[in-house]
Amino acid sequence: MALSEIETGRHRRANRSSVSPDILATRTKRMSASAIREILKVASQPGVISLAGGLPAPESFPVKFMPEVFAGALEKYGSSVFQYGPTEGFPPLRETIATYLSDRGVIATSDQVIITTGSQQTLDAIGKVLISPGDKIAVETPTYLGAISAFNPYEPCYIALESDDDGVIPESLEEVLSEHTVKFVYLIPNFQNPSGRTIPSERRTAIAATAMKHNVIVIEDDPYRSLRYEGYHLPTLWSLAPDNVIYAGTLSKVLSPGMRIGFCVAPSLIRQWMVLAKQGIDLHTSSLDQAVASEYISEGYLKRHLPSIVDLYRPRLKAMLTALENNLPEGFSWSRPEGGMFLWLTGPDELDTEKLYPEAVKNKVAYVPGRYFFTCPGVGNNTMRLNFSNVDEESIARGIELLASLMVEER
Amino acid sequence: MALSEIETGRHRRANRSSVSPDILATRTKRMSASAIREILKVASQPGVISLAGGLPAPESFPVKFMPEVFAGALEKYGSSVFQYGPTEGFPPLRETIATYLSDRGVIATSDQVIITTGSQQTLDAIGKVLISPGDKIAVETPTYLGAISAFNPYEPCYIALESDDDGVIPESLEEVLSEHTVKFVYLIPNFQNPSGRTIPSERRTAIAATAMKHNVIVIEDDPYRSLRYEGYHLPTLWSLAPDNVIYAGTLSKVLSPGMRIGFCVAPSLIRQWMVLAKQGIDLHTSSLDQAVASEYISEGYLKRHLPSIVDLYRPRLKAMLTALENNLPEGFSWSRPEGGMFLWLTGPDELDTEKLYPEAVKNKVAYVPGRYFFTCPGVGNNTMRLNFSNVDEESIARGIELLASLMVEER
Repeated sequence: MALSEIETGRHRRANRSSVSPDILATRTKRMSASAIREILKVASQPGVISLAGGLPAPESFPVKFMPEVFAGALEKYGSSVFQYGPTEGFPPLRETIATYLSDRGVIATSDQVIITTGSQQTLDAIGKVLISPGDKIAVETPTYLGAISAFNPYEPCYIALESDDDGVIPESLEEVLSEHTVKFVYLIPNFQNPSGRTIPSERRTAIAATAMKHNVIVIEDDPYRSLRYEGYHLPTLWSLAPDNVIYAGTLSKVLSPGMRIGFCVAPSLIRQWMVLAKQGIDLHTSSLDQAVASEYISEGYLKRHLPSIVDLYRPRLKAMLTALENNLPEGFSWSRPEGGMFLWLTGPDELDTEKLYPEAVKNKVAYVPGRYFFTCPGVGNNTMRLNFSNVDEESIARGIELLASLMVEER
Repeated sequence: MALSEIETGRHRRANRSSVSPDILATRTKRMSASAIREILKVASQPGVISLAGGLPAPESFPVKFMPEVFAGALEKYGSSVFQYGPTEGFPPLRETIATYLSDRGVIATSDQVIITTGSQQTLDAIGKVLISPGDKIAVETPTYLGAISAFNPYEPCYIALESDDDGVIPESLEEVLSEHTVKFVYLIPNFQNPSGRTIPSERRTAIAATAMKHNVIVIEDDPYRSLRYEGYHLPTLWSLAPDNVIYAGTLSKVLSPGMRIGFCVAPSLIRQWMVLAKQGIDLHTSSLDQAVASEYISEGYLKRHLPSIVDLYRPRLKAMLTALENNLPEGFSWSRPEGGMFLWLTGPDELDTEKLYPEAVKNKVAYVPGRYFFTCPGVGNNTMRLNFSNVDEESIARGIELLASLMVEER
């Protein structure tokens, strides 16, 4: 495995095919194979303790209830679960999600909810209707790679917002919005992927005020909210600035990522264009999956099952924090999230986590080098993302121990 | 209902929202609400015989087998049906589809099959990786509106290929490809939507030869192939020019459109870029739906159930052909498809099917005015698309009778 190969993929591909690469659209210059994808392939070799992935634990899925939920959906909705449906979403699910969101201070009627094919599609549709080539988008540092891969084909420029352990620094947002015309700001306020950090309440208020002052749209991507193991839920940005926020959620972390159900609430003009875009993208999200999801939430399965997911992940997070504490010397620091699936590790300046990666895999432990999560090159070389949701406590302890000994050796 | 309102939607939307329309990407200028969508809304009013839709009949869905299929998939694939999966598709389904396609002369290994979220997504992904703004695409006249709505956001120009009752005229294709650099040619060779026509064998050979000569890519969109009620299957374009054809199929017409399962086989360079694009679009198609689809095909349900779908639609097509024969005077002509879901009617030059539409709905019958299926304005005003799959024989007879009396009156 040579990471450099990933970057030359464009040329390697061309040589393997009789179709000339001239056929490709100019926007493909901005698209490249996700490095994480290659990292994950290596990480999934047998015997490797993978702290690299971003998967929910399979034991968190409500497999045993599903035949019952499926039968219930079939009985309730009949053949409509197999028929074409409205682009905006399966009406009973839109209704269910509207109610579900009210607990988060996202107060929307079912008409204001769009169901998407996972939150990845929410981001693609937003990109399609909002980004003209060259438009500026403000993002956190580090930021979520899936968002970058959704936006890149629409050829934006990224402006990195200064961030610390509490996420985006409101003054940096103010400065950027004063100096630049920004199409939107993209944030994950809760247990961010990759950093695990959460924006505190006062900062949320400041961010919302700044967005309103500059009349800019903020995408609030909120996949991990329900996975809170300690502390209290914080107000959504949507609840603080509803006219300026596109709220994006998903059932991937609380039901099943394989079912690809996302949802979003957006200002009316943007929502209507997103629906128009979605018509051309995939007509509508699977009626079957939407019916099953609607049954799962409306019949109380989600509410009954969620605590068991939280109880599964809480000790894993704790195990990882303990192992880091026990194994890493001075010069290393890490985030201490109260939820989510990831934790962010920063080593001494001389640590190069990408260079270390092949060695780590040889020693049967994998992670994601942090540099992939930055939009500017040359940053984050001494950082890494660690996942704790899909590994049991014992393997976490062993994995961190292995990793620590490699990193300390490296010094 | 005023059709003109649809076209001014852009402005109406702006006035209903506090977000300024300046925020929209420039490509949205090419996106507009599908007129068919508005037509269908009106057509679905109670009491209206709708020959407008493009829906499979709900009684064609294998509802009664589905709990069994679902249980089988769950038993066979376990929790993987709820987990994230590979962007290219759920491995067992790729395997199943590769076998399924061999009957069509599309000879591919499972590695060469991409599973998509319906063939609408196949078209979106193709557009994303191949179309730069201003690129030329050659299409049939009339052509499929869903393809136009997938391609439009990527801002192509359309070149209309001359077509007759047998589809695209190969000489016109030769002429266009000699005069223009065309990114790809988009064709539906079997029972085309909207015209119902099928390209005969000799023409397929000529089209394949022309594509190879000019080294141009042809998208062969083939949703209706299995819905053949008379005659024999014709060779796919893919089987005649595999290096030049992207073959796009779907389970929407033989299993369920609500499940959103499409598939495609494309030249290697294009396939790899489509996978890269799909990562950013929706990560992957629903694992649950893919597992159910795989079980449905591999366990023989599809093969056993398909004849009942054909037997359901065959008399409906016959009823429509008979009703047209019995009710329309000289000056009207229509396609006589041997399969599919649609039939194309052409009236005398003075007929204006769009103008007639509100009157028709008032008289409780609906269709789609033909002009929407042409990429150039001012063409097809005397044509209409008629659907026969989702209406029983009696209603078809009554609907055509109503429609005929209105059209004859109009003269």
